[in-house]
Amino acid sequence: MTSPRVVIVGAGFGGLECARRLARRPVDVLLLDRNNYHLFTPLLYQVASSLLNPSDIAYPVRAALRGAPNVRFRLAEVSGVDLAAREVITSDGSRVPFDYLVLAAGAATSFFGLREVEEHALALKDLVDALDLRDQILRAFEAAARAAAEAERRRWLTFVVVGGGPTGVEYAGALSELARRAMVRDFPELDMGSVRIFLVEAAARVLPLFDPAQGRHAQEELERKGVQVRLGARVEGARPDGVRLAGGEWLDAATLIWTAGVRPSPLAAAAGLPRSRSGRIEVDGFLRVKGEERIFAIGDIAAAVQAGAELPMMIPQARQEARAAARNILRAAAGMPPVAFRFRSYGVMATIGRNAAVARIGPVSLKGFPGWVAWLFLHLVMLIGFRNRLVVLLGWAWDYVRYDRPIRIIGRSRDRNRGQI
Amino acid sequence: MTSPRVVIVGAGFGGLECARRLARRPVDVLLLDRNNYHLFTPLLYQVASSLLNPSDIAYPVRAALRGAPNVRFRLAEVSGVDLAAREVITSDGSRVPFDYLVLAAGAATSFFGLREVEEHALALKDLVDALDLRDQILRAFEAAARAAAEAERRRWLTFVVVGGGPTGVEYAGALSELARRAMVRDFPELDMGSVRIFLVEAAARVLPLFDPAQGRHAQEELERKGVQVRLGARVEGARPDGVRLAGGEWLDAATLIWTAGVRPSPLAAAAGLPRSRSGRIEVDGFLRVKGEERIFAIGDIAAAVQAGAELPMMIPQARQEARAAARNILRAAAGMPPVAFRFRSYGVMATIGRNAAVARIGPVSLKGFPGWVAWLFLHLVMLIGFRNRLVVLLGWAWDYVRYDRPIRIIGRSRDRNRGQI
Repeated sequence: MTSPRVVIVGAGFGGLECARRLARRPVDVLLLDRNNYHLFTPLLYQVASSLLNPSDIAYPVRAALRGAPNVRFRLAEVSGVDLAAREVITSDGSRVPFDYLVLAAGAATSFFGLREVEEHALALKDLVDALDLRDQILRAFEAAARAAAEAERRRWLTFVVVGGGPTGVEYAGALSELARRAMVRDFPELDMGSVRIFLVEAAARVLPLFDPAQGRHAQEELERKGVQVRLGARVEGARPDGVRLAGGEWLDAATLIWTAGVRPSPLAAAAGLPRSRSGRIEVDGFLRVKGEERIFAIGDIAAAVQAGAELPMMIPQARQEARAAARNILRAAAGMPPVAFRFRSYGVMATIGRNAAVARIGPVSLKGFPGWVAWLFLHLVMLIGFRNRLVVLLGWAWDYVRYDRPIRIIGRSRDRNRGQI
Repeated sequence: MTSPRVVIVGAGFGGLECARRLARRPVDVLLLDRNNYHLFTPLLYQVASSLLNPSDIAYPVRAALRGAPNVRFRLAEVSGVDLAAREVITSDGSRVPFDYLVLAAGAATSFFGLREVEEHALALKDLVDALDLRDQILRAFEAAARAAAEAERRRWLTFVVVGGGPTGVEYAGALSELARRAMVRDFPELDMGSVRIFLVEAAARVLPLFDPAQGRHAQEELERKGVQVRLGARVEGARPDGVRLAGGEWLDAATLIWTAGVRPSPLAAAAGLPRSRSGRIEVDGFLRVKGEERIFAIGDIAAAVQAGAELPMMIPQARQEARAAARNILRAAAGMPPVAFRFRSYGVMATIGRNAAVARIGPVSLKGFPGWVAWLFLHLVMLIGFRNRLVVLLGWAWDYVRYDRPIRIIGRSRDRNRGQI
């Protein structure tokens, strides 16, 4: 008897964890991803602010799978699922058969149908986003240095970050430090006091998943760093030269960063499986897709419900779901009944830059320097690979001591360099 | 009296050295480049073989100019020179006046009019080239792992490097080590013995600027690493699936790397200045453009003649010319006559990979391990910035001990990821 063939779509936190849990077990695993790396998304904002290199947070999937002879990887984008034939369909038209399927394709940026914003804003969801954003920020400073008119200079030095979740808060803080600590030495011709960073959040406070006191603390820290926090504000439209808020206010700004919305991967719709109102794939209490015995969905693409609500699109949720799905696949293959999944929260944390973070770890709330140390330690531990930990730690130490962001190169694209200077 | 305004076009080895020589002297210097970084081109092949990060060899120009209040930088591509008005014209149409001009725009890849080759080959001349090439190499291994037919797999695992100069020799050696040392662990499903690397050189030996014995030694080292060296061979045509050599031989190969030709930057023609037969700008013995009193040309774009021949397009030549041009500008500004330039050679070196290099330093010829250590030391010292030296040294040590190429991520472009899988 051959081992059951498990296909996992997506090498993010859910998919990779699931593959590792199935390593050296009696199944044949094929992991598919359209990128050849696993991305450590919590530090993406540091790539976008010239502090880390892409390779510091992008770990080759094949290296992560070494030592697991029953797990293979294939670089492929999955475009659909043939439920009847039990095959996954890739974008080049080839078909991959499965006995069990784990959909872990994650989420993408949602612009809520705001077309102008989608056209002009930069997102911060994948590695290419982060490199594009880094290039745009550095290009904005260069353009400001070249600008003949004061109004033009001011527009290049104005950055609007939309979304008061961890990504928006962390990026606004990092951007402020980049401008006021590192760029100030590169651009003696610019007055960095005229740099304006707006953080626009529709809700009444930032970091809605944290305690209200921690949200207030984060806001104060951001304001101390010169970030102008606009609560209860929504972006309604955008042009290359600025952003229009609901109510009519116009902000002259050359750079718009959008961290305000996510939606499940397009594969959720393309797979032809039942979906919840949020667009995520509906799963039962065992993380099987509703109506399917052999298809599981985990992480951002799946609508795992607990206490009457969908679990948020976060890493701990994806990883715990991955473990449960792996266990239930092994049980099903052995003819045993599935075990129900229950998410257990250990806390949340976000950093606002140098020496400042907020964290809730179980019953303990941390902020300021202790929160920041906890944040540093946790993120260092979570990185894959000794070399990455070492290099990231060195990068952080360098920045801490020297106030220097070493990766200040506009490097991604020749065409964009040409077009946008 | 205001200081004379010196405009330098290009922040390569010539332009940057010239700017530094004019720092804290009685001139106002404006350095222009279309990139915001100075590129340490001798290690470009290591970025293209997944060993170093782009930021390890790309140093922000503004950081290199810190502490020189009379030197400023502007991100701009220069498209022409208005000789009568004494202005440089940038690609966005703005004009930059000068009292003295230094043209140091370097060189670009030449395909000698071979259109098929230009369309299908990857070059290795700038940072975007290196990242494209890295992505292509990694994608080729992924495609080989996915290939259904043996012939297709073999084609993906065949790499043709054209050009037996230092770049071609170094890249062929690095590619062999990447495949046989690092990728072998990532791709247990592939037989790395079927990887074929060709080095195609039109001359009768590799490294024509070195002693014949050193060229032979380099060739033997490459062959020991499994590289097939084809001397007296020329590439005549190319398709996505292979390369046609003069004489009709066809090599099934998915990847063609072109290091065989350089030509002066297009600015040489666009500037409307006298040019030699090689297309470089003609200069007199003081490095002034022929017929011009206030315009200098240095480095790859300039045809500095010595002993009846144009100096080759190499870094020491550019740097020595930069120093001479800077001195002659200062002398002219002070009303003194120019001093003649004379290039002095200190040697040449090239590495063929782990433990192997050839070097000629003055009267001393080195090869093998001593040559390799000399190569390592010199390149480390030439890098700009303590942090880069430290990070590159760490990267080399890691690779040496672990046979590991850490930067194995296909990271540059979303569109290419989609299109070419």
